[in-house]
Amino acid sequence: MQRLDGAGIGIGFYGNSETSDGVSQLSSALLHANHTLSTIDDLVLETVERLGEAVRTELTTLEEVLSERVELVAATWGARRQAEAAAQHLQGLAFWQGVSLSPVQVAEDVTFVEEYRWLAYVLLLLLVLLVCLFTLLGLAKQSKWLVVVMTAMSLLVLVLSWGSMGLEAATAVGLSDFCSNPDTYVLNLTQEETGLSLDILNYYFLCNQAVSNPFQQRLTLSQRALASIHSQLQGLEREAVPQFPAAQKPLLSLEETLNVTEGSFHQLVALLHCRSLHKDYGSALRGLCEDALEGLLFLMLFSLLSAGALATTLCSLPRAWALFPPSDDYDDTDDDDPFNPQESKRFVQWQSSI
Amino acid sequence: MQRLDGAGIGIGFYGNSETSDGVSQLSSALLHANHTLSTIDDLVLETVERLGEAVRTELTTLEEVLSERVELVAATWGARRQAEAAAQHLQGLAFWQGVSLSPVQVAEDVTFVEEYRWLAYVLLLLLVLLVCLFTLLGLAKQSKWLVVVMTAMSLLVLVLSWGSMGLEAATAVGLSDFCSNPDTYVLNLTQEETGLSLDILNYYFLCNQAVSNPFQQRLTLSQRALASIHSQLQGLEREAVPQFPAAQKPLLSLEETLNVTEGSFHQLVALLHCRSLHKDYGSALRGLCEDALEGLLFLMLFSLLSAGALATTLCSLPRAWALFPPSDDYDDTDDDDPFNPQESKRFVQWQSSI
Repeated sequence: MQRLDGAGIGIGFYGNSETSDGVSQLSSALLHANHTLSTIDDLVLETVERLGEAVRTELTTLEEVLSERVELVAATWGARRQAEAAAQHLQGLAFWQGVSLSPVQVAEDVTFVEEYRWLAYVLLLLLVLLVCLFTLLGLAKQSKWLVVVMTAMSLLVLVLSWGSMGLEAATAVGLSDFCSNPDTYVLNLTQEETGLSLDILNYYFLCNQAVSNPFQQRLTLSQRALASIHSQLQGLEREAVPQFPAAQKPLLSLEETLNVTEGSFHQLVALLHCRSLHKDYGSALRGLCEDALEGLLFLMLFSLLSAGALATTLCSLPRAWALFPPSDDYDDTDDDDPFNPQESKRFVQWQSSI
Repeated sequence: MQRLDGAGIGIGFYGNSETSDGVSQLSSALLHANHTLSTIDDLVLETVERLGEAVRTELTTLEEVLSERVELVAATWGARRQAEAAAQHLQGLAFWQGVSLSPVQVAEDVTFVEEYRWLAYVLLLLLVLLVCLFTLLGLAKQSKWLVVVMTAMSLLVLVLSWGSMGLEAATAVGLSDFCSNPDTYVLNLTQEETGLSLDILNYYFLCNQAVSNPFQQRLTLSQRALASIHSQLQGLEREAVPQFPAAQKPLLSLEETLNVTEGSFHQLVALLHCRSLHKDYGSALRGLCEDALEGLLFLMLFSLLSAGALATTLCSLPRAWALFPPSDDYDDTDDDDPFNPQESKRFVQWQSSI
């Protein structure tokens, strides 16, 4: 019986740590997804502001410098229009802006619940361990009061074991149900919570060749706008700089801004691609449906073994009591009082013997 | 002693499974990195071929159709030049082409070694478990031959335990040394094996704001070339189609090719970005330096506990033998023969008693 329980406690600790691993994988995937989403928003904001700043300062300076030649001013106007168009297209890429659902909040909630679940299981496991050890001690020392207390404790832990087994069974059934086909459920839930369009969600949740990138159009348009600004700036550099040396400084500064913007644009393309977010989704699902579910099944096995072992203990303890030698059967009122003169002597002997 | 060994075997199984988890994380990260690298190569090859095909067929048709108007032919020549330039820039992005190091090969080697290591440990753990059980059985049945055999087996397993502890200690020290500062070592090793330039390797192994994208220049140039093809095609559509209706079909087909190429280009930008490959690198390192190292330490603890328990067994078994009642001391030659008439009776009793 003690062996069964020892194995049960080992299985319980393993299951508890597996469940905890799975849940922490889920929350770290959520945090990573949040980082990607917020980086997209920040990058879009930063790029749009940089383009706006360039339009307000350098392009205005350029127009003033070149105001004598109408066709050059027209070219700067063209560049200004393209920059504004690029900023507008980019603005539309920050799809997570204004969405009320925060993955960080979900991750924090999950971690909060998991911490208490983990602690509760560790306490339950330690309680089972202590009950086992003190029952053994009570049997070895043939101490009636310890056996009585441990019988009561066993009953309590038996109830706790059955209760936890019920909870685990319910959670395992719910989780298996969810894990058999999670995509549709998560997709519908996310659409309800975020209000994002179905093609964006499909793109990120499925991420295969069949689903086209919903940002493709905007990305291509902003890319063409940036390339056209570049060609207009090159034309201006060729024609305006020989006549207006003052135009060189704002032109170089605009080229520099354009290069930085193109770098940000490439980073934005990489962030918007479904690979990264889809990998986070897969990793969150794996944490939940592999590690956490496996841990939960081990915890169920622990509850079953510990309930079995405790039930056996409860049945056998009264019989063991009946076998205790009657010599131990002195006045019970002093039995648990170490300060009784006779008792304290026995207590010291007991203490020195352990 | 048996409890110690029971705990040791539990720890051994846990350590073995942790090490196996860590190594499988490493090999799955390698496989994912390989997938990314080969997708980059395939995508580049496919895009370059698509551009070349468009230049050979549709642009040639267009030139023949528009051959009467020199300025339109010049525009198609411009588009051809840009398409060739874009193909050339894209060609340079397939940085893994021709590299002899294959992550798949490394992953397969690692998995092969790990499978045998795992199996060897499971066999060792089962051997320790069997030795424990049969020693207990020998003591309980006071069977001298079983105790003698188990003493010999204990000696063998003790030697195996010490040997495995030595191997584990050496591996753990080497791995900790590697894990204290892996970046420089892995970077140098990869440069030696692949011959890739240091800025590409730095970009992927460090992947922070300080390291600029080494493909930025090529990406920007091919992006501008694609945008300029687009504007030239639009110009042709505006000016040529009203005069030459036959030009519409190749022009539409070219626009279509350009759209597909821009989609592939965005996917290429996402794949070339360091996020994905750097995450694989981080995940491989975590598998090796967290899970595998932790598992190795648990295996060391198992070896230590099992060596201690077996040494205690070896010391105490001869003394236990001396305490066996002399009534058991009959002729030893028949002791292990269940078909001896007297013996078979005792054997049946023994069988029915267990």
